[in-house]
Amino acid sequence: MSQKPTRIVVVGGVAAGMSAAARARRLDERAQIIVFEKDRYVSFANCGLPYHISGDIRDREDLLVVTPDDLSRRLNLEVYTEHEVIRIDRVAKTVKVRDQRNDSVLKEHYDKLILATGATPLRPSMPGVDHPYIFTLRNIPDMDAIKAVVDAGVFSAIVVGGGYIGVEMAEALRRRGLRVDLVEQSDQIMASLDPEMSRDLAYHMESYGVHVTLGKGVREFRGEDGRVEVRLDEDDVRFADMAILAVGVRPEVKLAREAGLEIGRCGGIRVDVHMRTSDPSIYAAGDAVEVRDAITGEWTLMPLAGPANRQGRIAADHIFGRESRYRRSQGSSILKVFDMTGGGTGVSEKSLRRAGIHYRKVYVHPNGHAAYYPGTHPMHLKLLFTADSGHLLGAQAVGFDGVDKRIDVLATAIHAGMTVYDLEELELSYAPPYGSAKDPVNIAGFVAANLLRGDVTPWYAEEWPALAEQGGVLIDLRTAKEFAAWSIPGAINIPIGELRGRIDELDEYRDNGLYLYCLSGFRSYLGVRQLTQNGFKRVYNLSGGVKTFMAYHH
Amino acid sequence: MSQKPTRIVVVGGVAAGMSAAARARRLDERAQIIVFEKDRYVSFANCGLPYHISGDIRDREDLLVVTPDDLSRRLNLEVYTEHEVIRIDRVAKTVKVRDQRNDSVLKEHYDKLILATGATPLRPSMPGVDHPYIFTLRNIPDMDAIKAVVDAGVFSAIVVGGGYIGVEMAEALRRRGLRVDLVEQSDQIMASLDPEMSRDLAYHMESYGVHVTLGKGVREFRGEDGRVEVRLDEDDVRFADMAILAVGVRPEVKLAREAGLEIGRCGGIRVDVHMRTSDPSIYAAGDAVEVRDAITGEWTLMPLAGPANRQGRIAADHIFGRESRYRRSQGSSILKVFDMTGGGTGVSEKSLRRAGIHYRKVYVHPNGHAAYYPGTHPMHLKLLFTADSGHLLGAQAVGFDGVDKRIDVLATAIHAGMTVYDLEELELSYAPPYGSAKDPVNIAGFVAANLLRGDVTPWYAEEWPALAEQGGVLIDLRTAKEFAAWSIPGAINIPIGELRGRIDELDEYRDNGLYLYCLSGFRSYLGVRQLTQNGFKRVYNLSGGVKTFMAYHH
Ligand SMILES: Cc1cc2nc3c(=O)[nH]c(=O)nc-3n(C[C@H](O)[C@H](O)[C@H](O)COP(=O)(O)OP(=O)(O)OC[C@H]3O[C@@H](n4cnc5c(N)ncnc54)[C@H](O)[C@@H]3O)c2cc1C
Ligand SMILES: Cc1cc2nc3c(=O)[nH]c(=O)nc-3n(C[C@H](O)[C@H](O)[C@H](O)COP(=O)(O)OP(=O)(O)OC[C@H]3O[C@@H](n4cnc5c(N)ncnc54)[C@H](O)[C@@H]3O)c2cc1C
Ligand SMILES: CC(C)(COP(=O)(O)OP(=O)(O)OC[C@H]1O[C@@H](n2cnc3c(N)ncnc32)[C@H](O)[C@@H]1OP(=O)(O)O)[C@@H](O)C(=O)NCCC(=O)NCCS
Ligand SMILES: CC(C)(COP(=O)(O)OP(=O)(O)OC[C@H]1O[C@@H](n2cnc3c(N)ncnc32)[C@H](O)[C@@H]1OP(=O)(O)O)[C@@H](O)C(=O)NCCC(=O)NCCS
Repeated sequence: MSQKPTRIVVVGGVAAGMSAAARARRLDERAQIIVFEKDRYVSFANCGLPYHISGDIRDREDLLVVTPDDLSRRLNLEVYTEHEVIRIDRVAKTVKVRDQRNDSVLKEHYDKLILATGATPLRPSMPGVDHPYIFTLRNIPDMDAIKAVVDAGVFSAIVVGGGYIGVEMAEALRRRGLRVDLVEQSDQIMASLDPEMSRDLAYHMESYGVHVTLGKGVREFRGEDGRVEVRLDEDDVRFADMAILAVGVRPEVKLAREAGLEIGRCGGIRVDVHMRTSDPSIYAAGDAVEVRDAITGEWTLMPLAGPANRQGRIAADHIFGRESRYRRSQGSSILKVFDMTGGGTGVSEKSLRRAGIHYRKVYVHPNGHAAYYPGTHPMHLKLLFTADSGHLLGAQAVGFDGVDKRIDVLATAIHAGMTVYDLEELELSYAPPYGSAKDPVNIAGFVAANLLRGDVTPWYAEEWPALAEQGGVLIDLRTAKEFAAWSIPGAINIPIGELRGRIDELDEYRDNGLYLYCLSGFRSYLGVRQLTQNGFKRVYNLSGGVKTFMAYHH
Repeated sequence: MSQKPTRIVVVGGVAAGMSAAARARRLDERAQIIVFEKDRYVSFANCGLPYHISGDIRDREDLLVVTPDDLSRRLNLEVYTEHEVIRIDRVAKTVKVRDQRNDSVLKEHYDKLILATGATPLRPSMPGVDHPYIFTLRNIPDMDAIKAVVDAGVFSAIVVGGGYIGVEMAEALRRRGLRVDLVEQSDQIMASLDPEMSRDLAYHMESYGVHVTLGKGVREFRGEDGRVEVRLDEDDVRFADMAILAVGVRPEVKLAREAGLEIGRCGGIRVDVHMRTSDPSIYAAGDAVEVRDAITGEWTLMPLAGPANRQGRIAADHIFGRESRYRRSQGSSILKVFDMTGGGTGVSEKSLRRAGIHYRKVYVHPNGHAAYYPGTHPMHLKLLFTADSGHLLGAQAVGFDGVDKRIDVLATAIHAGMTVYDLEELELSYAPPYGSAKDPVNIAGFVAANLLRGDVTPWYAEEWPALAEQGGVLIDLRTAKEFAAWSIPGAINIPIGELRGRIDELDEYRDNGLYLYCLSGFRSYLGVRQLTQNGFKRVYNLSGGVKTFMAYHH
């Protein structure tokens, strides 16, 4: 008990830093815990910033989750705001800190140092980017600045970047009545999802009047008559009263780099499973570190609040001799886009391809809850799994009701190392307002397991039109009325209820591939089963049906 | 291929039966599949019946999920409604069927028989129970009868039974404007939950004007002046225009019993993991069978739609040589009660006690989503787990937003055999409208793991007042204002922020037990950590705080 108390210095006082400090205090009442934060605010809700601008969160104070005073009284933390740590001396085990209020510099000793310096919004070096009406959003002052301009009554905004901050800001500004242009360099918004899954979200934004432009990058900004001029590829020029730059974040590792700590391939601080850097007295947590992807094993950046909070807790644990570990990240994320929700967990198809991992996939469109109970909508659910054992690799869902629930159930399933066969068996809670007797997750499991068992062989929207050009015969199993409204060019219509009586008509195509489809994949699955058992060898079911097809070939 | 087609006879054409028939057809195009249903309707949404009476589901047709015509055209099933199977001849492998429309009897051969006869509402034999205005609710005709009476404009109803059908009917009738009395013999509604968890649901019903009476059973019914008179214990007499009897269901096993099939201890048909009865040519599925509890291993009844649907599918699978198995049931269930949601998964504390299983528990009250984002409420979440390894045994949650999600995440975790340590690590999706950076499930994991690691020792609401009588000292760590409004009798108030400075005051109680509490258990947890590390040995934290305390000592 008379041993000298541990002296912990934390750099950065928000999600990772303050979680580490709070946990450290609970583990050791005698420790001296000092938090330096260069900004004026600590423990604020970064994730809530767009919602104060939109007006959803009316009271700015609500964003200040805990005050320095609370932290001092409850947790006996020494919190210094407007104090920037400017240098680490690893040999002397000291940090040099600049008090920004009076520009004085002080030195502080540490036994253990925790770097929770977060990340910084990217501001590509490009002409005109310093225009005073081009904003990034990371903290309270950023939010205040944007809100002041919006409150003052501007009419239009350009949001550059279709990640979650860009999308949230586009929604916020639109809901404040601005004309909003969202421009994104790649061919999709929400890069954590696969493109076909993000499509509906972009449409939905358009239906709320956000003008979404994909596939065009910003070349240059100009200031023109007090307005912002944004010059895109292909000489596309846009004007607005303000612009939001939301093109991603970069781990804030200046301090760590200067101190000679190992920086990883993705530019984040390298840490072990206990969040310890290459210097055993220094830990790092949150957006500043890089982590391993749970599926691919590759180093990656996961700048998310959940991991930041838990990593901070783990760093504190390890300082006090506990064996807590941070497992690999599976990147569960979710986004509200007006009335819709989109999210994912595990790895995307894009990433699987990039990593060269062999996988299978299915799409389904089950309702969020029982169809006969009001207020539900079909969701678009995509499941990725290993081709041999059916182990889950990733899942994505987009829709209205119950999307977040299925993402989290699937996140838990992935964490547990479950297979698609496990999903068939999951016993989820059911009453009409919440789900279906066969939950969407069960349905996805059935469909995936049917594929692996060889009961049905899928075809995919992206194989069209090639498969038709190669002689494949398209068979549409929807009603004549549905068929009349729209069908895949060249398809033959045989409503599912008539198929048994009309199998003979297909005899001439026995050696072609028969590519069946319907609206969601259910009726054509029945069709595939009928034809297969009638001796047809090459019969395929369009996974996800016309709904998924449309998400590809919009 | 020229082998004789399998002839499958299914008895009962709703959840289990029709799922089995549909799956059988997908597995074998040549099979002859005959479904006998004694009622006029097949494939209807039992679970939706209360919501048509309430008016939520406006169109009665919406309850008929699939029509016999669909089933015939799409799946080539022979569906006979108003056909009651009255006898099984296991030697001849035939069933005797009464066509109820003309009272003729026919005989049908089977290779495989599937019994999906469901369950029947209990109608205790008690005086007056046959009064024409005393209803049970199981199927469409029942619903039609109730709805006709309500539409005709009655003023009041008594619902007997506080299970989910009783609660749903009480809500439905209340929302139709009736004066509604709910009476329940035991001391709680929703027997699948523990009593303290169901309390808020009962209060909530009361706040909507449903008069809830617990702890009184019905002794007798009488018909008086066209009204129903219900005589309860303690000579409590109630009058109403109608009564709903919702006191549970009994597996419908008459056919099975007469055929000499093994009937289990709970009165359900005994089946193996493939849903096969004691006769290998006869399968059974759904409410008619008994299953093993996933945790206790005991035989039990789980009359729920999810299991029924999946069991039907498994029976069909096994008939066609597939090895699908039905694992033990974990009884995930959920209920909407006006604006609230309550649900559970795994085993309840009551059942653990009954089964003599050693367990630990925690209560937490996290918000459904980030507190700073509008529209959230604290939920009451209870976790049960093994005392040694921390394996999850059960979970219950009651609240407003996000309850169903946490139940399903925990159902998945239990299915996977996870521990509370796994819950600490779960990487769930987070954005302010959906959750918190530390999700309620993570929080429950932290608190449970802290208990098992010995960082904090809980005390429980049910130990009061005994612990105070035995000299335990109660310490309230809330603010003086909270304390002034209400406190546990005899408690000393030391707001958490002042504790460090006032530890000396507690010195005189060093040898008593110190029983700390606050509103939810968070501040008192901080207090416990401070005191423990200041050498206090007997310091305890009230699990779930005043909120859980209130749920016990209402
Ligand atoms: C608008 C917005 C919306 C978001 N929405 C979501 C969401 O919905 N879901 C989600 O999971 N995540 C979301 N995030 C991301 C989430 O906020 C971050 O992942 C999380 O805050 C990272 O925590 P951190 O502690 O690592 O970094 P930060 O929260 O950035 O904290 C780092 C702190 O360190 C300080 N600092 C840096 N260098 C120094 C120094 N040298 N000296 C002193 N102080 C220093 C910085 O000033 C900063 O305050 C959002 C972020 C933003 C900006
Ligand atoms: C009002 C209500 C609300 C419910 N809400 C929920 C809920 O929210 N969540 C949930 O999980 N579960 C709920 N359930 C329970 C769910 O409906 C049942 O678990 C499920 O229907 C059981 O399916 P089954 O096929 O075994 O039985 P049933 O659906 O009852 O079907 C059995 C059928 O067999 C027929 N039959 C019986 N004997 C014979 C015979 N000899 N010959 C021919 N036919 C016969 C019967 O007429 C009946 O139609 C609810 C039930 C009701 C009544
Ligand atoms: C709030 C903040 C200071 C962290 O505080 P914290 O005390 O670690 O975290 P929480 O308030 O979530 O509480 C979690 C702790 O309380 C305990 N707890 C919670 N409810 C409890 C209850 N009912 N009974 C007992 N203990 C409880 C948990 O066990 C955990 O303690 P542990 O880590 O020692 O196991 C830090 O997360 C922060 O600054 N957040 C704001 C910034 C942010 O996160 N931004 C990104 C998201 S917008
Ligand atoms: C509807 C009913 C006839 C069962 O029909 P079913 O065809 O087995 O079940 P569903 O309609 O849910 O569809 C599930 C099947 O479609 C497949 N499927 C679903 N969506 C699909 C898609 N997009 N692509 C391919 N296949 C799909 C599933 O794989 C599954 O087939 P499988 O069992 O061969 O693997 C039966 O459940 C019933 O009568 N229900 C009403 C009664 C009831 O359940 N009451 C209680 C709840 S209120």
